[in-house]
Amino acid sequence: MDLIKRTVGVVGSGSWATAMIKMLGDNEVDKAVHWWVRNGETADYIRTYKHNPNYLSAVTINIPKRNIHADVCAVITHSDIVILNTPAAFLKDALTGVTAEMLAGKIVVSAIKGIVPDENQIVGDYLQEQYQIPIENIAVIGGPCHAEEVSLEKLSYLTVASQSVEVAASVAALISTRYIKTNVSDDIYGTEYAAVLKNIYAVAGGICRGVGFGDNFQAVLVSNAIREMSHFVNVVHPIARDIKESAYLGDLLVTAYSQFSRNRTFGNMIGKGYSAKSAQLEMNMVAEGYHASNCIQQICLKYDIELPICNAVYNVLYQHRSPSAEMKLLADKLT
Amino acid sequence: MDLIKRTVGVVGSGSWATAMIKMLGDNEVDKAVHWWVRNGETADYIRTYKHNPNYLSAVTINIPKRNIHADVCAVITHSDIVILNTPAAFLKDALTGVTAEMLAGKIVVSAIKGIVPDENQIVGDYLQEQYQIPIENIAVIGGPCHAEEVSLEKLSYLTVASQSVEVAASVAALISTRYIKTNVSDDIYGTEYAAVLKNIYAVAGGICRGVGFGDNFQAVLVSNAIREMSHFVNVVHPIARDIKESAYLGDLLVTAYSQFSRNRTFGNMIGKGYSAKSAQLEMNMVAEGYHASNCIQQICLKYDIELPICNAVYNVLYQHRSPSAEMKLLADKLT
Repeated sequence: MDLIKRTVGVVGSGSWATAMIKMLGDNEVDKAVHWWVRNGETADYIRTYKHNPNYLSAVTINIPKRNIHADVCAVITHSDIVILNTPAAFLKDALTGVTAEMLAGKIVVSAIKGIVPDENQIVGDYLQEQYQIPIENIAVIGGPCHAEEVSLEKLSYLTVASQSVEVAASVAALISTRYIKTNVSDDIYGTEYAAVLKNIYAVAGGICRGVGFGDNFQAVLVSNAIREMSHFVNVVHPIARDIKESAYLGDLLVTAYSQFSRNRTFGNMIGKGYSAKSAQLEMNMVAEGYHASNCIQQICLKYDIELPICNAVYNVLYQHRSPSAEMKLLADKLT
Repeated sequence: MDLIKRTVGVVGSGSWATAMIKMLGDNEVDKAVHWWVRNGETADYIRTYKHNPNYLSAVTINIPKRNIHADVCAVITHSDIVILNTPAAFLKDALTGVTAEMLAGKIVVSAIKGIVPDENQIVGDYLQEQYQIPIENIAVIGGPCHAEEVSLEKLSYLTVASQSVEVAASVAALISTRYIKTNVSDDIYGTEYAAVLKNIYAVAGGICRGVGFGDNFQAVLVSNAIREMSHFVNVVHPIARDIKESAYLGDLLVTAYSQFSRNRTFGNMIGKGYSAKSAQLEMNMVAEGYHASNCIQQICLKYDIELPICNAVYNVLYQHRSPSAEMKLLADKLT
């Protein structure tokens, strides 16, 4: 770890961003943390009460009042490491006013597990194209990690991926705590795509639960999902990787099986007959899998990849097919 | 499928055996089914009321009264396909009086997911050695399948493995129903070992839950478990196989994550401080993982294989190490 004191900026104020603030605070490396909290009232509340009123409200926020900003540009100019921590659907909006110059020379870390809408790009590609950030300055945080469990200090393992080993190691060193173990990897594409796909598989699992399938089927669905994921990432970004590692399989498992999984909950509601819109409204959270489904469908068309599970989810969410009929068709394709 | 009418004997009367009777009954191939129910009172109850009083009591038993036997030899002599469906720990006891001659020429199917105690053998090896059954007459039923869900007719996928493709196909044809899909495989060793190991991993998952680890950790544990399983079966029986198939990974998932998993429940009680004995007494079911842990430990010593998760479970169950301390040590070995 360098001796220079790091300045880290966190962009986003949802549950995963709040968990990130907690990890950075509990990590013992000396650093300054700046936080972008868009909503002025929320920012005031956090400054006054040291808790996020909306997400993980039990977590004490231990950063100086003056480091909480309503202006994203202020956070970015203050920081040499910028962690992007919004839902993918809100990333472009969050970065309004941010220019390539502001990000020049900085390490930009995506803790976003989603695809940038319209562009159909993973965040790593988007950052390179939109902001000319060199790939070796980009890192991705992946791995099985529900924010709610971080707030409870439950032992969790994160993977930090970057094509630069030093960048991955520096970022890992800033978020390791007694309850967060970190691995490093050089597979930013695989890590990002796995994180995106697993949300779709969690929606699929939820739909299947919602229409009445049981645990036996769920296990077959997830076994097929990991093979489907392996196929996809090996076509889109063919390098040697072991899909059974925690960054890939673990991330899928925690999302597919955890009680905290919003994608699974969303899928369950769809399976029970809610529309996508009303399910999202009722949950008051973004189910990344909803947006990811559309994006991955386009990428599959582009690369001519067939992913039966993702396709079934797309048909239900975007083609208004009956969840029950579609999942029965899917069941015939699984082994 | 041959045109000769098959006679199938089921040995065992627990929940998985009862589910097997249901599958054989709902399957449309013409056949006679004989059932060994050791306890005379239970057999009488089933003959009278057409329900097993002890397990899956909602299932209607549709086999003729005279086909329910208290004498295992009678079931075997009546059958050309014998399905062994007891807990592994009770297999030798169940087969008391059965000779190699009685089994000669028959297809013997193991639906047991466990290791024969004392011998430390999977059932396939035990049948070959003890009863001189040729390997091509042996089949194994594996895959993610909780008996409770079969009783509810929830869609499930089973794998029938045999070195004889015809034997595997014949057995699969007898248990397929509208809610049971079957695959065939030639990997009887991998299928059996996977079924044994997954019970140990489910115990491990339960222990971790019991001592307070959360879903994030559980996902890492299972990701490591599938790699550990892959390592073990590739050393003990090296053939080409994809460990991500449902027969391996799916079986692990359903046991590690299902609410119906007795091994997980057993582990949870151990993690919370119960002794192995009192946990088993309270559950009133056999947790296969308990016996499997000791057996696999011996096999690992023989082959000089290191399996950190299995070893941690063994240390807790047989070396009386503190579950909490042992799982913390294990956590440091996982990635």
